[in-house]
Amino acid sequence: MASIKDVAGLAGVSVATVSRVLNDKGYVGQSTRENVEKAIKQLNYKPNEVARSLFKKKSNTIGLIVPDIMNPFFTELARAVEDKATKSGYTIILCNSDGNIDKEKSYLDVLRQNYVNGIIVSSNTLTAAQVKELNIPVVSIDREISKGLPTIVAENNKGAIIATRFLQSKGCKKIGHIRGTHGVANAEERFNGYKEVVSGEPWYDDSFIVNGNFDMQSSIEATKELLTRHPDIDGIFAANDIMAIGAIKVAYQLGMKVPEELKIIGFDGITLSTVLTPELTTIVQPIYELGEKATTMLVHLMEQQPLEKTYYKLDVELIERNST
Amino acid sequence: MASIKDVAGLAGVSVATVSRVLNDKGYVGQSTRENVEKAIKQLNYKPNEVARSLFKKKSNTIGLIVPDIMNPFFTELARAVEDKATKSGYTIILCNSDGNIDKEKSYLDVLRQNYVNGIIVSSNTLTAAQVKELNIPVVSIDREISKGLPTIVAENNKGAIIATRFLQSKGCKKIGHIRGTHGVANAEERFNGYKEVVSGEPWYDDSFIVNGNFDMQSSIEATKELLTRHPDIDGIFAANDIMAIGAIKVAYQLGMKVPEELKIIGFDGITLSTVLTPELTTIVQPIYELGEKATTMLVHLMEQQPLEKTYYKLDVELIERNST
Repeated sequence: MASIKDVAGLAGVSVATVSRVLNDKGYVGQSTRENVEKAIKQLNYKPNEVARSLFKKKSNTIGLIVPDIMNPFFTELARAVEDKATKSGYTIILCNSDGNIDKEKSYLDVLRQNYVNGIIVSSNTLTAAQVKELNIPVVSIDREISKGLPTIVAENNKGAIIATRFLQSKGCKKIGHIRGTHGVANAEERFNGYKEVVSGEPWYDDSFIVNGNFDMQSSIEATKELLTRHPDIDGIFAANDIMAIGAIKVAYQLGMKVPEELKIIGFDGITLSTVLTPELTTIVQPIYELGEKATTMLVHLMEQQPLEKTYYKLDVELIERNST
Repeated sequence: MASIKDVAGLAGVSVATVSRVLNDKGYVGQSTRENVEKAIKQLNYKPNEVARSLFKKKSNTIGLIVPDIMNPFFTELARAVEDKATKSGYTIILCNSDGNIDKEKSYLDVLRQNYVNGIIVSSNTLTAAQVKELNIPVVSIDREISKGLPTIVAENNKGAIIATRFLQSKGCKKIGHIRGTHGVANAEERFNGYKEVVSGEPWYDDSFIVNGNFDMQSSIEATKELLTRHPDIDGIFAANDIMAIGAIKVAYQLGMKVPEELKIIGFDGITLSTVLTPELTTIVQPIYELGEKATTMLVHLMEQQPLEKTYYKLDVELIERNST
């Protein structure tokens, strides 16, 4: 494989000049530039990406920090980010934080030390100050860190209102809610949407809300508790699909018929929601579009192009299937 | 943040000397080394990973090439690889090849140009010669490229034999097979296991085999074709869980009761197989262990430690649930 020295030798210039041409930085005369470009072509020279990284303090990589790739919502998001990043000339470093603040911080350290060009993060714990201190473009996805930061989320509150009203329109008289993780903005918004719809009802109190922590196992426990506490619940709005799937499992174990005796609606629209029997009624977020748009925003930031908007709230849609 | 120059200044040595200490390369006298180490501690200096990469032609990253992270088998594998890699001081660059030879090749180019320390790959198309040419440690996972390469796979043939015999023991008289992708070693091995068990049966011929390409949509088409062709099939062995889930969906659409009229068994043991109703009977591979062990092997290779073995075939286990 040809080296930068070979290119410099053939073009009759110094290595530093070749480097300036490669990185498009510093003055190089037109004819010199042409000679260097000719030599690069002739030798089929492929620049050493790490050397270029060092020069530019960049490495053509994007860090992607998600709580857990095993949650299908984040799997689908990661796939979208990777597809879009590849098309734009970036590779993805994948980081699973488990929503743990120490893991998030140590990943940020590692990513910065590796000179990633930018970071896409879905975090429960980062503050705006911590993000600014990084001095790297950051786009926040699915979970808002601060209004000032480039952010892309879905209409969580609106989606929750639609979901809860839909259960009412299907005849549900007592509706429980399986909450997402405490302290996570989208969990709060979905909870607030639910509360907005039912808080005026005579039956309503806090005992209709259980915490499912956005994962299936917690949701299974939480649903059992909810249905033991209120055996007459006839509708459940779960703050994500994985928790809704957990709730359906519990209903089957308890011999409750879904949707005849208990209607269940989720939130996310993961592919899995179409695979189950019964297929899950859910509030669909445009997951792939979230990932794509976040990557496009980040590429603009990294390449110092202007952003159309720094805050996107993507619309959601109710898809009725067989669980309601 | 302190720079390497600050360290050199405080220790009273040149930057090159600090670099030699950091990278443990070249001669440095004992007292000089101690001075440098003291200065590093005092200034809380964190070495620039990219600069170290350039020096060592390494970057503390591992490339992970899988066909598609959206297949839960690979999601679970990726999570295991990332967990283990992080513990060993490496980050993961995630690459989805879609089983496409051009994508695989361009990822290999990008990974090599970024000086990844090693690659874990699940490929349909790479040859041993291509891998050797890379001159980087490579571990092949789930799909064998060549006996000579470090490889970790599961007992595919044995698992398929167990699955097919199990259907027979449950009373199935005519058993169909949904094959994985043509040309992929594990698909061939599972197919051969099935054939070994049933090829002596009077009813058996090629029309009992359909190609599901390891994905759900193809499996749905394939299962429809299979059940139209042979409405009296009472057992299906699908070469992975996602295809088995597709087959269950089709059975429901056609009004066939699972497991009463049709028994279905999968292969992989993805978490999803426990979520469905009915829960899926399947041949469980130790997916997490596959990912962990592959990473351990690669770390040994990258750090030039001896390997205990270069070829692992992990055992599989039948888990009986409600689809059979």
